[in-house]
Amino acid sequence: MTDKQQNILIIGAGLCGSLLALRLGQRGYNVSVYEKRPDLRKVNISAGRSINLAFSDRGNKAIKLVGLEEQVKSLCIPMNGRMIHDVHGNTFQSNYSGREYEFINSVSRGDLNALLLTEAEMHKNVNIYFNRKCKSVDFEKTTALFEDYETKKQFVEDADVIIATDGAGSAMRKSYYLGKKFLFSFSQDYLTHGYKELSILPDEKNGYRTYKNALHIWPRKDFMLIALPNLDGSFTVTLFLSYEDGEYNFNNLTTEKSVLEFFKKEFPDALVIMPNLLDDFFKNPTSPLGTIKCSPWHYKGNTLLMGDAAHAIVPFYGQGMNASFEDVVEFDKVLAQNLKTWEQVFKTYESNRKKNTDAIADLAIDNFHEMKDHVAHPIFQKKRKLEMALEKEFPDRYSSKYSLVTFNENIGYREAMLRGRAQDKAILNLLTNDEISLEDDLKSTLEKVMKETEAILEDDRIAGLK
Amino acid sequence: MTDKQQNILIIGAGLCGSLLALRLGQRGYNVSVYEKRPDLRKVNISAGRSINLAFSDRGNKAIKLVGLEEQVKSLCIPMNGRMIHDVHGNTFQSNYSGREYEFINSVSRGDLNALLLTEAEMHKNVNIYFNRKCKSVDFEKTTALFEDYETKKQFVEDADVIIATDGAGSAMRKSYYLGKKFLFSFSQDYLTHGYKELSILPDEKNGYRTYKNALHIWPRKDFMLIALPNLDGSFTVTLFLSYEDGEYNFNNLTTEKSVLEFFKKEFPDALVIMPNLLDDFFKNPTSPLGTIKCSPWHYKGNTLLMGDAAHAIVPFYGQGMNASFEDVVEFDKVLAQNLKTWEQVFKTYESNRKKNTDAIADLAIDNFHEMKDHVAHPIFQKKRKLEMALEKEFPDRYSSKYSLVTFNENIGYREAMLRGRAQDKAILNLLTNDEISLEDDLKSTLEKVMKETEAILEDDRIAGLK
Repeated sequence: MTDKQQNILIIGAGLCGSLLALRLGQRGYNVSVYEKRPDLRKVNISAGRSINLAFSDRGNKAIKLVGLEEQVKSLCIPMNGRMIHDVHGNTFQSNYSGREYEFINSVSRGDLNALLLTEAEMHKNVNIYFNRKCKSVDFEKTTALFEDYETKKQFVEDADVIIATDGAGSAMRKSYYLGKKFLFSFSQDYLTHGYKELSILPDEKNGYRTYKNALHIWPRKDFMLIALPNLDGSFTVTLFLSYEDGEYNFNNLTTEKSVLEFFKKEFPDALVIMPNLLDDFFKNPTSPLGTIKCSPWHYKGNTLLMGDAAHAIVPFYGQGMNASFEDVVEFDKVLAQNLKTWEQVFKTYESNRKKNTDAIADLAIDNFHEMKDHVAHPIFQKKRKLEMALEKEFPDRYSSKYSLVTFNENIGYREAMLRGRAQDKAILNLLTNDEISLEDDLKSTLEKVMKETEAILEDDRIAGLK
Repeated sequence: MTDKQQNILIIGAGLCGSLLALRLGQRGYNVSVYEKRPDLRKVNISAGRSINLAFSDRGNKAIKLVGLEEQVKSLCIPMNGRMIHDVHGNTFQSNYSGREYEFINSVSRGDLNALLLTEAEMHKNVNIYFNRKCKSVDFEKTTALFEDYETKKQFVEDADVIIATDGAGSAMRKSYYLGKKFLFSFSQDYLTHGYKELSILPDEKNGYRTYKNALHIWPRKDFMLIALPNLDGSFTVTLFLSYEDGEYNFNNLTTEKSVLEFFKKEFPDALVIMPNLLDDFFKNPTSPLGTIKCSPWHYKGNTLLMGDAAHAIVPFYGQGMNASFEDVVEFDKVLAQNLKTWEQVFKTYESNRKKNTDAIADLAIDNFHEMKDHVAHPIFQKKRKLEMALEKEFPDRYSSKYSLVTFNENIGYREAMLRGRAQDKAILNLLTNDEISLEDDLKSTLEKVMKETEAILEDDRIAGLK
């Protein structure tokens, strides 16, 4: 059933779909990809959507799998840590890891997608069609209904297998939900905050107007501003703010005066380098932030959801693209097992994978609170300082939650979450109770932290009667 | 806006809707209730749905509010604890509380609903219409579209306020979801288990064939059978079993032979008193078990979801009806504040209430695992024994998680969950580490448990940076 002559239809040629097409092309399958948007190599289609993304080790594992590591590297700007900006414009940097070789990258969504499309199309068994929007999927017949935006005509495609990588608004997931042919667990959870993209343009010499190799954060407890660098000297800036709560919110920031007042009060150092603020603010849309989970991802051996279509997450851990790329790695691993049927492939893949995508969804919500609020707490800052020292001194023995999630692609998100949360709890409690401090001998601190972490994990196991 | 001349339209005359109609009738509002089913006082409409339910203190608080305590009491059969049946037919009872006056009740859904309908209709400002199915709600216009099952005609009703108490499959919630006019967070989560109702009929003298005053459980780790008594001498029995996993499951129990084999092996003592097993098994439907959460419950000051329409839960804590009744108590409390607009009423109600209905949803899932599995663990049994002793010895100082949830109607579900989980964790860990035992002095045990519970809560607060 899973042999190479099979016809695989992929819905959506975004980051996940184009990487999947490339990998399945490399494996020799006949792959057809249908994408609703025009070819982004020919038309600018960003339209206020996130134009740069954080790219890190889990994503890179997938890129290595398809042999594009060097090409992707040339698109990346390393970010070694968070640059925190307080309300007076003071900054301090908090690294992502105590190990120098661990950092994340800012990468252009469009450039990366274009590369993957071009590489996929080099395989003559891969065909990509643009301007074809999927309207619905008949998962019992393994057919999909499309509308051709150019001819305005509808047509049906069939295949041996359909894989939908059509993002958070997936048409196939909607068909699962509305079909009511099987028990489909589903959730969409919106934050009360939305986001708006802004920008810091390059200076006159096309240089960066603030420090290039960091993810900048202006944490203000109930809201925040962040900025990631682009190759052209600009930064993409994102404001995360409540729709309706607080003194300033998206619903009441309706005049130039109030927007300027807000930025002057809260982000004075950013305002100075954002002369184009008002243009951006009133031109770009305000968009919601949501988490989507569902199950099952597959219908028998006919259809499968992957990437954001199966598990959309909020952006605060910088893991959305990385998780979708890791889907392809995990799916590829199951293909390599040469199981007899697609149903076995899909079932094995979901059973290995879902616990991990659930975990990164929850971690991403945690990080929302960490970024807008906790990074400004003295005890949190103490914890990070200590973790950097532990990682530097014991590179093989200690990894913070952030490191486990971001730089340890050989353990799953769920394991990273369980261990990472226990460690955080251990350190915060040991610090609060003065059982460890930044002045202590690091070796004895490491041992106390590890012992307390194990005790927390063990207590949780006992309480779970496992 | 919220004055008494307002017309309130209630969709659904189930347990929550009829109680709400009664209470709003008592408060003097003009209330119209539309129910899709026929009047259950005239027609038997059970159709294999749960015919008895657990009724406890939170539900009773609402019943007291409307002045029906004595009448409801006459419909109740007290259940003092769980009667656990092992695979050999041995039984042991585990009480719900160490305080004698704390027990839960088995009550007929139909009898209770009939009482509430009759009481509501005694108010001339309350009108109830049956056989009218709500098709959709226009929450911007505050109108609802109905189909009259008798005339087959559709009609539109408008009102000052619409409250939907139309259960887990709520038509108004569907209108919220499909309308896409505001950010609507929504989840439906199915267990991989389903349920089927069976029965133990009365004996020849209309007596009970097994002990009357208990909730019977046959826990088998991956599945279970339970039984609750009815006033007529019968028990309603429910089998909770996976659809597709395990040696026996709903998908493969398709022959009389396999069903008998399954019961003979797993529930031999139940089988003896269920001569009608095969009839029930093949006549009654297998139904799914799901949790529904959503937010917001209201649209401006126009419409509001209550009861299962807003928060359907799995049945394992016996709190579904109690939570819906408590909704009415909480809503009534907000009405008593005389806020200026319905929007303020709805917003205040949801902000007070949602954290608690989220908590009982999660507790109910926990209890699924507790009932089918943990109750058979030696350490869990030791914990329960100890808790019974603590509750008996220190009735004013100790309440188990079960007691906090079930018998402490003056604290919310969320507080009950946080304190209850911490206590469970404390006791299980203290027992495992031999720091307390059943033989110790109870006073010193209580102090250790309380100290450890506080430490756990404090550690969680610190780890949450709160």
